[in-house]
Amino acid sequence: MINEQLINPKSIVVVGGSDDIQKPGGKVLKNLLDGCFAGDLFVVNPKAENVQGAKTFKSVEDLPQVDLAILAIAAKFCPASVRELAENKGTKAFIILSAGFHEESEEGARLEQEIVDIINANNGCLIGPNCVGVMNSNHQGVFTTPIPKFDPMGVDFISGSGATAVFIMESGIPNGLTFSSVYSVGNSAQMGVEDVLKYLDETYVEGKSSKVKLIYVESINKPEMLLKHASSLISKGCRIAAVKSGSSEAGSRAASSHTGALASPDVAVEALFRKAGIVRCGGRQELSTIASIFMHPELKGKNIAVITHAGGPAVMLTDVLSNNGLNVPPITSPKAKNLLEKLFAGSSVANPIDFLATGTAQQLGDIIDACENDFDEIDAMAVIFGSPGLFPVYDVYEVLDRKMKECKKPIYPILPSVINVKDEIEAFLAKGRINFPDEVVFGAALAKVYNTPKPAVLDADSYSLDVAKIRKVVDEAENGYLLPEKVQELLDAAGVPRAKEMVVDTPAACVAALNEIGYPVVMKVVGPVHKSDVGGVVLNVTDQETALKEFERMMKIKDTTAILLQPMLSGTQLFVGAKQEGDFGHLIFCGLGGIFIEVLKDVTAGLAPIGINEAHDMIHRLKSYKIIAGARGQEPVNEDQYAEIIARVSALCKVAPEIFEMDINPLLGTRDKVVAVDARIRIEK
Amino acid sequence: MINEQLINPKSIVVVGGSDDIQKPGGKVLKNLLDGCFAGDLFVVNPKAENVQGAKTFKSVEDLPQVDLAILAIAAKFCPASVRELAENKGTKAFIILSAGFHEESEEGARLEQEIVDIINANNGCLIGPNCVGVMNSNHQGVFTTPIPKFDPMGVDFISGSGATAVFIMESGIPNGLTFSSVYSVGNSAQMGVEDVLKYLDETYVEGKSSKVKLIYVESINKPEMLLKHASSLISKGCRIAAVKSGSSEAGSRAASSHTGALASPDVAVEALFRKAGIVRCGGRQELSTIASIFMHPELKGKNIAVITHAGGPAVMLTDVLSNNGLNVPPITSPKAKNLLEKLFAGSSVANPIDFLATGTAQQLGDIIDACENDFDEIDAMAVIFGSPGLFPVYDVYEVLDRKMKECKKPIYPILPSVINVKDEIEAFLAKGRINFPDEVVFGAALAKVYNTPKPAVLDADSYSLDVAKIRKVVDEAENGYLLPEKVQELLDAAGVPRAKEMVVDTPAACVAALNEIGYPVVMKVVGPVHKSDVGGVVLNVTDQETALKEFERMMKIKDTTAILLQPMLSGTQLFVGAKQEGDFGHLIFCGLGGIFIEVLKDVTAGLAPIGINEAHDMIHRLKSYKIIAGARGQEPVNEDQYAEIIARVSALCKVAPEIFEMDINPLLGTRDKVVAVDARIRIEK
Repeated sequence: MINEQLINPKSIVVVGGSDDIQKPGGKVLKNLLDGCFAGDLFVVNPKAENVQGAKTFKSVEDLPQVDLAILAIAAKFCPASVRELAENKGTKAFIILSAGFHEESEEGARLEQEIVDIINANNGCLIGPNCVGVMNSNHQGVFTTPIPKFDPMGVDFISGSGATAVFIMESGIPNGLTFSSVYSVGNSAQMGVEDVLKYLDETYVEGKSSKVKLIYVESINKPEMLLKHASSLISKGCRIAAVKSGSSEAGSRAASSHTGALASPDVAVEALFRKAGIVRCGGRQELSTIASIFMHPELKGKNIAVITHAGGPAVMLTDVLSNNGLNVPPITSPKAKNLLEKLFAGSSVANPIDFLATGTAQQLGDIIDACENDFDEIDAMAVIFGSPGLFPVYDVYEVLDRKMKECKKPIYPILPSVINVKDEIEAFLAKGRINFPDEVVFGAALAKVYNTPKPAVLDADSYSLDVAKIRKVVDEAENGYLLPEKVQELLDAAGVPRAKEMVVDTPAACVAALNEIGYPVVMKVVGPVHKSDVGGVVLNVTDQETALKEFERMMKIKDTTAILLQPMLSGTQLFVGAKQEGDFGHLIFCGLGGIFIEVLKDVTAGLAPIGINEAHDMIHRLKSYKIIAGARGQEPVNEDQYAEIIARVSALCKVAPEIFEMDINPLLGTRDKVVAVDARIRIEK
Repeated sequence: MINEQLINPKSIVVVGGSDDIQKPGGKVLKNLLDGCFAGDLFVVNPKAENVQGAKTFKSVEDLPQVDLAILAIAAKFCPASVRELAENKGTKAFIILSAGFHEESEEGARLEQEIVDIINANNGCLIGPNCVGVMNSNHQGVFTTPIPKFDPMGVDFISGSGATAVFIMESGIPNGLTFSSVYSVGNSAQMGVEDVLKYLDETYVEGKSSKVKLIYVESINKPEMLLKHASSLISKGCRIAAVKSGSSEAGSRAASSHTGALASPDVAVEALFRKAGIVRCGGRQELSTIASIFMHPELKGKNIAVITHAGGPAVMLTDVLSNNGLNVPPITSPKAKNLLEKLFAGSSVANPIDFLATGTAQQLGDIIDACENDFDEIDAMAVIFGSPGLFPVYDVYEVLDRKMKECKKPIYPILPSVINVKDEIEAFLAKGRINFPDEVVFGAALAKVYNTPKPAVLDADSYSLDVAKIRKVVDEAENGYLLPEKVQELLDAAGVPRAKEMVVDTPAACVAALNEIGYPVVMKVVGPVHKSDVGGVVLNVTDQETALKEFERMMKIKDTTAILLQPMLSGTQLFVGAKQEGDFGHLIFCGLGGIFIEVLKDVTAGLAPIGINEAHDMIHRLKSYKIIAGARGQEPVNEDQYAEIIARVSALCKVAPEIFEMDINPLLGTRDKVVAVDARIRIEK
């Protein structure tokens, strides 16, 4: 568990601190000395004295009690130092910068485990090894630059990669992004990204803690912990954006060669982020742009006023917003006329509100006031103001800053003239403001934030399952595909409606079954896995003679042990699936059957447990949703029943986590009901 | 026509030049004086002498002969000055910076037309009014900053918006983008973006002219000219990227309120750009990133080596490349082993090639050499090299610059540490290099460039149309929907195969037709436009009794004049459409019918003329293409015939441009043939 000694130590020792500031041990010491750390700072260096002017000891044994130890010595020397510090110096927090551990060799992995064992035994916490360190407004225990501006309401940033953490800061700082804390977790030997997030959640204090969390991660080792604490933080009003890289197959290979990360399958990551309410980013610029959006008041609606003194960027911003689900609505308020009178001839208040190249600071203030107070249809303002380089625009940016303080609606500053009014932009940033230099990059990010759902709330179960029956079937099952009758038992126990079906293996039984089910029927072989491919499915059999002829033929198909008879139902073909995905638990899938799943890959996924509301959301996200809703006068599918089946399959997987893979395909959906026609379930214990 | 006097004048007058450099007239003069213009520079100002030290005249009448006039005086004074200059001073080129013309009022529009008439009558050329000017390596006739670095091989940049031109330069210059020329065309009263492109095409000299063209435009007024000269330039080896803003409905409204632009429908723009081979961009950063890619050697294949000293950015770059159609292939060359021996332990040459945080300049050189010479599977290299801030990296960037000179394969520098090694990056840019600070922004742009097809080459027609017959039908037609028999005549004349059909209006004729066509048949009402909606379509009629009963019923449907009988065909439902799109000509559409067009909107568009190859490309771009190709053992559609029908519809529209709208829906496609079953054609003369 992350502890106070790591975050706000009274004393720090740099083991391996030196005078060479081109090496980690020297640079971390320099950063600590240059920074704001106010406690005791010690150095251990057997060969030098008074390193960089700090109190220097020959060995860790010579040290007094010390809260936090930062190690920058060769891997093989780390365990002994850690032991001495943990056992004899009361050290409860460790940052190990050194590489050469499990990312490099088996011997390194052994050293790493030894260190973790020592620290665990002494109830301490460990960041690293193989990391750049930790910094916040108490100390800057990192060996890299830049050191950002710290602000309690700035970004809490956790990174699984040290260099990437540096590059992400370099992407955000020039535009004014500030930080509250930065954690580089390196090999995550003890504390990983998820543990840091847990700490931020458990120590969150409304009004005192930052509301913005950023994450860069290459592998998610503790998905449940991440989901729990991300959802919890967001429910408290925080906002979280994350890059999980390695989304492509080649990218996963790349990630695997880095820090020994094993990439989690990407669909599960996507589903987890959606469920938690985390905004997923693809790169550094997007992450820092979204962090910058998070540093503004929350966008509460989709209607944006684009305020500009130049047409082009306003048009591009309007395009990207309205092509991505946000609105730039025409302003219809009668008070628009009052505003127009305050602007120069030729201005427009239609939205974009264009007050021309000659527009003044005073006019900008008037426009913002109107959007804040008069135009109820507006939820937020994007202000585009650059310069062709004729005169300074300090006055404009001062008004902008003042209005941002006064207004409740978010105001996003888009200041494109990073050359022409560089000084004015710097003065604006110095006030704690953030600039979005490119309106389209901003607009795409804003839409992404707006379109990311809130954390899923699991609704109370409105249905019950026969848990005992399910456990009995699964406990008795062996690994592999369940027999059809066992599949039926599970579906019945889970409350998934299914087509009546009978399995027969003699002509006489076939005739009896036909009499019970009635015509037309569907006949399927029992035994072969890919039934269609071996000619093992016959549809629409309407008489006994045909049925018996097909029975004879089908029983001869390889691996066939019996024939299954079902009524020939009609309706829209649907699909529900589930798949065990390691530590992530079960992914639940839904979609339309046939070409929709096979050709168009129109499937949505959710991470179990999926309640009724999330199931509806999964259905609504299908590209072919309109077909379920009943497009062009066609019969709709009973969506409530479909959603309930999705939720029941999720509940089934919770009761029977041994379900490794399961497909109900097809289900047939009509206005009245949704019925499972065929299903396969594979058990892996 | 753009002329030499605009591009490389011997003399320039600034009419309205002043000492106030916060005004356009003063600033343009300052830019000209500060810049490299080597000819005679005059000022006209009735109130001041010796303005900014330049030779100053009280009025235009006093001027000697002058090649280029730049006007920064009130709109109402412009016509008289232009007349004097054009008629008496031999001035052949005009740049009018002033606003207050057709973008503002009817009176302004009149003034603008008067000026154009004068200049046309004197065979001159006009840039503007309402623009920021023109600049190149001969003169900097603009009233804005920044003035970029000029290089004959830099970017030729044409912008329909002055402020946007400034902001685009401000986006590209900090990363090292250089320019060959910049044109701000303002109101495009005489010369528009298209005319400038025409000039660049007609004066293109291999080896002397820049190969990179950028365009920002809010409305395309001369689509044919743009298509012709963009295709031509690209065929000569040039590369063109463009932003056409106003792609959304709201964005079009925004564009309309700016420079009086009327946005063209966006599908037509998309189709035109694709046909021309123009890379379409959505914003300033994307445009300048793609321009920066264009400044490197052409990417000839899809296999990229990602070379890095830090894992994270390499993984993100690999993700974005491989998720967008490019490859980061494993390196399998036996020579990879030799390379690995030159790197530090723990490095990887699997691709990404990771030479670790400790990697040296020498090692980078070795890696690049191996990719250039030994690894045949590699088409280009992306080199990621930042810094955690411990020591300078001048040596690395020097090797990078040297290798970029030596290598034939493109090398893209991704230098993320814009803070830590700012000075080193500046030194690198000073050598004429360009930096891509964000690997994901770069990767998305590279994929977009790679995925943009070359200009379409219209293949020779392999089929003929009965032009005389088509013209006869169209000439005789009135505006509105053609009668079914006329539609049939056009399809026959265009060589589009169609289902046999007969139109009957008595029961006796119905019986005769049934005997000729055979069963089963389809029956449709003639008259109503939306036949299905009024119950006017009956499928699969298998006997005479049913047919006659339906005949009686259907004849009573409102507006019905007769019943059409067709054989009941089977096959995959396809769709071909055409629509007149103003100056763009005809858009041709294809797709699958039914839900594919109605629910999934899976339609591709091309700009006529569409040859066989482009038609195949349209078919291949369908998301549902696999169904046409025969997914999961289903019968495929005869793609050659389908493509030919698309091309024939395009050819029909060329012969009969009065076709305002036309649908063939459905066509039924089988392995053997594709047959039109129903069609509507609307004529607008």
